[in-house]
Amino acid sequence: MKRLLVIGVGAGDPDYITMQAVKALNRVDVFFLMDKGPSKDSLIDLRREICARYISQPGYRLVEAHSPQRRSDDLDYTASVQALNQDKQQVFERLINEHMADDECAGFLVWGDPSLYDSTLRILQAILDAGRCTFDYEVIPGISSVQALAARHKVPLNRIGGAVEITTGRRLAAGQVSTADSQVVMLDAQDAYQQVADRELQIYWGAYLGTADEILIAGKLKDVADQIERVRKAARHANGWIMDTYLIRKPD
Amino acid sequence: MKRLLVIGVGAGDPDYITMQAVKALNRVDVFFLMDKGPSKDSLIDLRREICARYISQPGYRLVEAHSPQRRSDDLDYTASVQALNQDKQQVFERLINEHMADDECAGFLVWGDPSLYDSTLRILQAILDAGRCTFDYEVIPGISSVQALAARHKVPLNRIGGAVEITTGRRLAAGQVSTADSQVVMLDAQDAYQQVADRELQIYWGAYLGTADEILIAGKLKDVADQIERVRKAARHANGWIMDTYLIRKPD
Ligand SMILES: C[S@@+](CC[C@H](N)C(=O)[O-])C[C@H]1O[C@@H](n2cnc3c(N)ncnc32)[C@H](O)[C@@H]1O
Ligand SMILES: C[S@@+](CC[C@H](N)C(=O)[O-])C[C@H]1O[C@@H](n2cnc3c(N)ncnc32)[C@H](O)[C@@H]1O
Repeated sequence: MKRLLVIGVGAGDPDYITMQAVKALNRVDVFFLMDKGPSKDSLIDLRREICARYISQPGYRLVEAHSPQRRSDDLDYTASVQALNQDKQQVFERLINEHMADDECAGFLVWGDPSLYDSTLRILQAILDAGRCTFDYEVIPGISSVQALAARHKVPLNRIGGAVEITTGRRLAAGQVSTADSQVVMLDAQDAYQQVADRELQIYWGAYLGTADEILIAGKLKDVADQIERVRKAARHANGWIMDTYLIRKPD
Repeated sequence: MKRLLVIGVGAGDPDYITMQAVKALNRVDVFFLMDKGPSKDSLIDLRREICARYISQPGYRLVEAHSPQRRSDDLDYTASVQALNQDKQQVFERLINEHMADDECAGFLVWGDPSLYDSTLRILQAILDAGRCTFDYEVIPGISSVQALAARHKVPLNRIGGAVEITTGRRLAAGQVSTADSQVVMLDAQDAYQQVADRELQIYWGAYLGTADEILIAGKLKDVADQIERVRKAARHANGWIMDTYLIRKPD
């Protein structure tokens, strides 16, 4: 039986890796590395560094595959992600069918935690459901950017007894209300915090968390939102890509 | 300057510990261990095991302190937690003032991730704000029970482009509506999933995640809720305590 390990490697700092992930890395015969858009070099580099640093036995193989891109903005977001996942499914099937022997163990290194805004689990399940490959798989959790954000700002995510919503920039910009006291926003390509009506809210913003380029800004929206927008734009320009996350809620 | 490290140790499996946490453990001169209610022995044991397993230089000290309990159910929940945190603040102040020298480093080992339903960060900030001790502190993220739950069930937390709400059993039982497609429920002492109106929802339930006693149950509420209630009651009886978490959402 083929075995796949979906390994969360943490969201930035190589030291975010868990002992469980290190043990999993050391079981892997072949790593499937998917490149991804403009951030691809940095992300593939982090994955190579993780393999080099934590694997004690050499002899593993690295197979890089070109990760398909989202095809169109005509489709609505969910439909375009579903189409993308179908493309990715074909790539994954090819990797599993052509690049690993029957008793081998393959590893997917997933940025942050595999359960949060990542399609790997959904794609593997779809492949199994389609019945075109058989394999076992395991999931190894990792430190997500949400936890990195809270740790670096030294703040709890929830208020006492309160709820936390993890959502997307797209939803926030569309004016989705939330019943949670605290909102964490990911995947924001459009400075959605600028569209939040209540400017008294506190924002804790972090970019490139856990890396040497990390930037942290906190304050009331009315005081720091424009600064965040400026810093964000400059950093994206300088690095060619940006990954940022933020928490917003009423001040204490 | 005294230095405190708030170290997330993961929610159950000692292998959930990160390399960053291992490095932090090895900087600590004195660990402050707070015992807690009926689960206290198991939790203190896990902490002792983590110290023994991952600290390469002996010579650290362990100081156990009795953790104050929530005083009354007359008060509303937030008020009673605030009162509890004031009691804890005094305990923490005493530990910091009496059990560490000026240039020493102290460690708090926090179950799971320090940012999620844990009062340590709030208490340390309150101590600094009150100005009765001075210290620097750092926060080291850990694998939370939310991530452990998703990994063990091999499911994403979010639907494509959707939001995830992390909430409490108390809020769920009170009928708090959520705008998120997926809800993760923690701190449920009252089988709140039994009060969810839509019995077609899918539940992914996990108890003692990452430990030898782990139990996983998944299915539609109408099919598995009674089973969960039975298993939960029996497990709590057998172990003297239970920690469980669940994800609920519409089936795919
Ligand atoms: C496709 S999602 C993957 C999330 C990942 N699975 C996790 O657990 O963090 C990418 C989004 O995660 C957030 N993100 C990931 N890494 C980050 C980092 N190091 N700093 C800030 N945000 C990050 C950003 O919001 C980004 O748009
Ligand atoms: C006081 S909160 C602490 C949460 C912790 N900071 C975390 O990151 O998971 C305790 C709640 O966490 C959840 N929990 C913690 N550890 C768990 C485990 N191993 N299995 C299931 N649920 C767990 C339960 O919902 C429990 O009521």
